[in-house]
Amino acid sequence: MEYYSNQINQLIQAFSSLPGIGTKSAQRLAFHVINMPEEQVQNLAKTMVDARQNVCYCAQCCTLTDQEVCPICKNPSRDQKTIMVVESPRDLAAYEKTGKYEGVYHVLHGAISPMLGIGPGDIRLKELMERLRGDVDEVIIATNSSLEGETTAMYISKLIKPVGIRVSRIASGVPVGGDLEYIDEVTLLRALEGRTEL
Amino acid sequence: MEYYSNQINQLIQAFSSLPGIGTKSAQRLAFHVINMPEEQVQNLAKTMVDARQNVCYCAQCCTLTDQEVCPICKNPSRDQKTIMVVESPRDLAAYEKTGKYEGVYHVLHGAISPMLGIGPGDIRLKELMERLRGDVDEVIIATNSSLEGETTAMYISKLIKPVGIRVSRIASGVPVGGDLEYIDEVTLLRALEGRTEL
Repeated sequence: MEYYSNQINQLIQAFSSLPGIGTKSAQRLAFHVINMPEEQVQNLAKTMVDARQNVCYCAQCCTLTDQEVCPICKNPSRDQKTIMVVESPRDLAAYEKTGKYEGVYHVLHGAISPMLGIGPGDIRLKELMERLRGDVDEVIIATNSSLEGETTAMYISKLIKPVGIRVSRIASGVPVGGDLEYIDEVTLLRALEGRTEL
Repeated sequence: MEYYSNQINQLIQAFSSLPGIGTKSAQRLAFHVINMPEEQVQNLAKTMVDARQNVCYCAQCCTLTDQEVCPICKNPSRDQKTIMVVESPRDLAAYEKTGKYEGVYHVLHGAISPMLGIGPGDIRLKELMERLRGDVDEVIIATNSSLEGETTAMYISKLIKPVGIRVSRIASGVPVGGDLEYIDEVTLLRALEGRTEL
């Protein structure tokens, strides 16, 4: 790309290495940053470096936080005996947004995927098993409804059942407001299998 | 967003203030940055600040560059007597990619828009007029084919014609490979008006 000068090219390349940012978006971002007041650019750069330096894993649930123990784990009004296992902090946030879940979480940071060479040792499973030595009533597995998510759910349930703790899996089926006509066959069969009596 | 800790939220907000980045993308970027090796984050931050500090306007064509005069203006094999007027450095890059244009450019950094309160004094028109005192054969106006672009083209042509320099406007019409059926009426009429004899 000789039509831009070196430093602009470097910035465009840096942006396009980020996920979900193609060449066009990277160009747009680069020119936006070059036209921003210098102070704002400094702030943006500082925010990035600070977050990278200070954010770490919660000592209890392994979510990302800038404290030693995250606010959810610290909250005395949450039910510490119910643990929902999720793949990522974003999945945790998705359930938090519902505002109805009262238990705590455990963030795996990934899912078992033989295809990508991610085994049980590469996700935060050991930390989960250690937590189960304490007083736990139920583990709710809320990994994604993908092949990897299901594999992980099966693996975890086999691991936990011998311990004698209740293990459940969130329901898979037709999304609320979903039109049957447009829903794939696998989901439709799942919804049928998972039917509940009225 | 109390489900993320402070510094994560700040980073998400910083990213979502950039153009074309919504909340979901900002979250994705934030978690990507937090999981990047620290050195890479430092580099990204530095690239941004460096580009902001060192990139300036080319003394001749006003495009963004990290040198005093951009490589295109400096290139002795380019025809310095033909100036293509574009709205932004990205438009310049679009024509450079064709590899067929041999002249030089002038970047306005915007277009006249009474709606947005952008007048002729807010874009790099004065610099263009100053260049025309030199030895110039033709000014090709390649502003966008939008209301603002057309307004700017009209304004510039009225300004330059008295000087006695040839002024032209890039053609507006059906894009190559375009299917007439799916093209808007205004473009179809433009293509008709601009028809050339075979």
